[in-house]
Amino acid sequence: MNKIDKTSTKSVDIISENETTQSSRRNFFKKAAVYSASAVAASSLLSPAKLLAEGKDDEFIVEEQPWTTSLGYELNKNPYGVPSPYEHNVVRRTTPLLSSAGDMHAAISVTPIQDLSGIITPNGLFFTRTHNGVASIDPNKHRLMIHGMVKKPIVLTMEDLKKYPSESVIHFLECPSNGAAEWKSPQFDSIQFVKGMMSCTEWTGVRLKTILEDLGVDPKAIWMLAEGGDGSSMSRTIPTEKAMDDAMIVYAMNGEALREEQGYPIRLLVPGWEANLSVKWLKRLEFGDKPWYCKEETSKYTTLLPSGKAIQHFYPLEVNSIITAPCPEKPWTSLKKGDMVEIEGLAWSGKGTITHVDISFDGGKNWVEAKLKGLVLPKAWTRFSYMYKYEGKDLLLESRAVDDAGDVQPTVNQEKKIMGVEGVYHRNSINTWQVKANGEVHNAQMRS
Amino acid sequence: MNKIDKTSTKSVDIISENETTQSSRRNFFKKAAVYSASAVAASSLLSPAKLLAEGKDDEFIVEEQPWTTSLGYELNKNPYGVPSPYEHNVVRRTTPLLSSAGDMHAAISVTPIQDLSGIITPNGLFFTRTHNGVASIDPNKHRLMIHGMVKKPIVLTMEDLKKYPSESVIHFLECPSNGAAEWKSPQFDSIQFVKGMMSCTEWTGVRLKTILEDLGVDPKAIWMLAEGGDGSSMSRTIPTEKAMDDAMIVYAMNGEALREEQGYPIRLLVPGWEANLSVKWLKRLEFGDKPWYCKEETSKYTTLLPSGKAIQHFYPLEVNSIITAPCPEKPWTSLKKGDMVEIEGLAWSGKGTITHVDISFDGGKNWVEAKLKGLVLPKAWTRFSYMYKYEGKDLLLESRAVDDAGDVQPTVNQEKKIMGVEGVYHRNSINTWQVKANGEVHNAQMRS
Repeated sequence: MNKIDKTSTKSVDIISENETTQSSRRNFFKKAAVYSASAVAASSLLSPAKLLAEGKDDEFIVEEQPWTTSLGYELNKNPYGVPSPYEHNVVRRTTPLLSSAGDMHAAISVTPIQDLSGIITPNGLFFTRTHNGVASIDPNKHRLMIHGMVKKPIVLTMEDLKKYPSESVIHFLECPSNGAAEWKSPQFDSIQFVKGMMSCTEWTGVRLKTILEDLGVDPKAIWMLAEGGDGSSMSRTIPTEKAMDDAMIVYAMNGEALREEQGYPIRLLVPGWEANLSVKWLKRLEFGDKPWYCKEETSKYTTLLPSGKAIQHFYPLEVNSIITAPCPEKPWTSLKKGDMVEIEGLAWSGKGTITHVDISFDGGKNWVEAKLKGLVLPKAWTRFSYMYKYEGKDLLLESRAVDDAGDVQPTVNQEKKIMGVEGVYHRNSINTWQVKANGEVHNAQMRS
Repeated sequence: MNKIDKTSTKSVDIISENETTQSSRRNFFKKAAVYSASAVAASSLLSPAKLLAEGKDDEFIVEEQPWTTSLGYELNKNPYGVPSPYEHNVVRRTTPLLSSAGDMHAAISVTPIQDLSGIITPNGLFFTRTHNGVASIDPNKHRLMIHGMVKKPIVLTMEDLKKYPSESVIHFLECPSNGAAEWKSPQFDSIQFVKGMMSCTEWTGVRLKTILEDLGVDPKAIWMLAEGGDGSSMSRTIPTEKAMDDAMIVYAMNGEALREEQGYPIRLLVPGWEANLSVKWLKRLEFGDKPWYCKEETSKYTTLLPSGKAIQHFYPLEVNSIITAPCPEKPWTSLKKGDMVEIEGLAWSGKGTITHVDISFDGGKNWVEAKLKGLVLPKAWTRFSYMYKYEGKDLLLESRAVDDAGDVQPTVNQEKKIMGVEGVYHRNSINTWQVKANGEVHNAQMRS
């Protein structure tokens, strides 16, 4: 049976009834090759007709493929869907270097940002940080207690919590040590390991202010303790001012319940601030007039300065950006000189909205303006793009973002002057990809 | 060891050193009960302190739960994450009634919209329609051929396609028979089965115009055929004008590669128009001066009118809405009189942006304005919300949406006058939930 006939009896006008599918396809192909050879490729973005112009048949378009000639699987095979098996390499990754002494209960797994599109991270790829393993909580037995310097302490079931009016917002979360691998472990010649400690999703939950306004927080209670229900009772102190501003108790990400490794059934969300403040498996909020100085804000997450002193309360993640295409995992080795190619990347700021991104090809001497594309939202990933004519020469490729707080992403040297070289937190200096003449891409920080 | 001590030595100020965790927690609880009993519940959204006010201990906050006292699992257990086992009921569903003669290769599975938050549908829950099973395609062997009345026909590999500049957009897709269950199979007393043939995600791909402008489409070629690479070679004819407007070839959803059941590695995306035009497993686009009259646009997807004639080319999905909370799956049976509760729902239009949603409690006699919340984007789901004081009485609950094309969602009777009762496509009339005095919710269409 003629393949095209399946769609309509009228399509026989297009391909002769007397030809078999195979021969008509081959025939089309030869004609097409003639068209293409005479086409002016220079006007093309990427010479799309190159396959045809080369005058050779492409076996995969000429021969019918098995998925076209056979029955697929039943649509209810996966009531909850899974990725194509061909995408098996698109996963979170970790290494003992990203753990406490090799213990994968206290470690970080990183998001394959080199493989992502747009600004939404699918839930299966959201980066994970645990301090005592992933807690697996029965939501029917989980409670949130809010107490301390409040007039009306409460205990909420998950059902209670969901009765408050909900809000949905798209925000990134980022570990404050994202990028630290460049400083402390230069063996990471990888965007996933160097910058993958972040993700961005649509969160849904209750604005904390909605609950707190009803409880009567004492004006002297300028600090809030958030405690997790995992085995580490991961805890952080957060200024009440921020809690009353845009913090939320969230129960959903990208439309569905939080994943266990993201704090199921509930986590705190502290938009734009270091992700460890967005305490997972949230079980308790306590209000007080002094910080708590928890383990995870004294032994960790303080910012060591050249003077030997450390900044203790340094919360917002400052303006940052990274070029995701090309990158070590997505090199330009298949490009030919003259090809047009899209340079793409992510910019974000915990202090507001991205207003501007520039690109440099020479390590920061000269800059061109990139285009912001898609949704540009506060405290969310923002995609930038620049169309580039590939020339097959050495480049030092950089991006530099600006936010509406007026901050400009610093150079490595500007950052070193203030922050020194020992601290691993709040590093947001400009990243440099070394693009080689053969299209390979390496992390230029490795040169030093 | 005192639980609170884990976080800091300073926390002993808060709970006495000499008390055990259990006794101090019980003690807190009794004090809290006193506070709560004196609190004025009337000012509360939902009397959140009710548990305490009732003066009884909640065993799940008083006793330590096992996830707090034990080690969780290693963070790298699932390099690609999965939902919590407690969410096992949040899945796509199907039934032989939504198939061709019980064959689950040609069927629809529906999204649990009653369980979703925000406007993003997670990829695992995106509704699925197949005509010959789910094709499992090797992207390295998949090709897209664009030919017919174009100057430069081309064959693209997936790598070629990804070299074009990409765009990301949030759009819904909806089967034109969504809602038809109300008309043809009133036994569906369920929002998932009645309105779950739709989902909304962030799509990424190449705007078709970007490719076509380079190929030289003949001005006489006012029609485009799109053919899928699945076993049914699912095909549809689409006006070239729409193809050159906002149609895209997409390869990613919510940041990652399309799922197989959504057309991996590529599908057409025809925003706002009936979802079957967004041909999955896309292998061929052909341009011509006449429609193709494919099987799936003659045997199906034409709109039968009372006259016995059918509308053949009826593409846009008109303004529509549905209340998702409450609904048959999410009743109000746990509410008490006087409780404040959020009525929530989804509105969408294939012709533009939602501008307004009203709510009626009496089957459309009187209306109040709902609030649009979160992102309000063209051809995307839009959430609406209304805070309601529950009174425990019979209601006929309805929502009515308006879009910026000026269209207002019709009543069932207005729709019947024009569309009759036989057709199952393009039904967008106002839905009525019958809320009973006991809080149960039923599909009111079942009454007739």
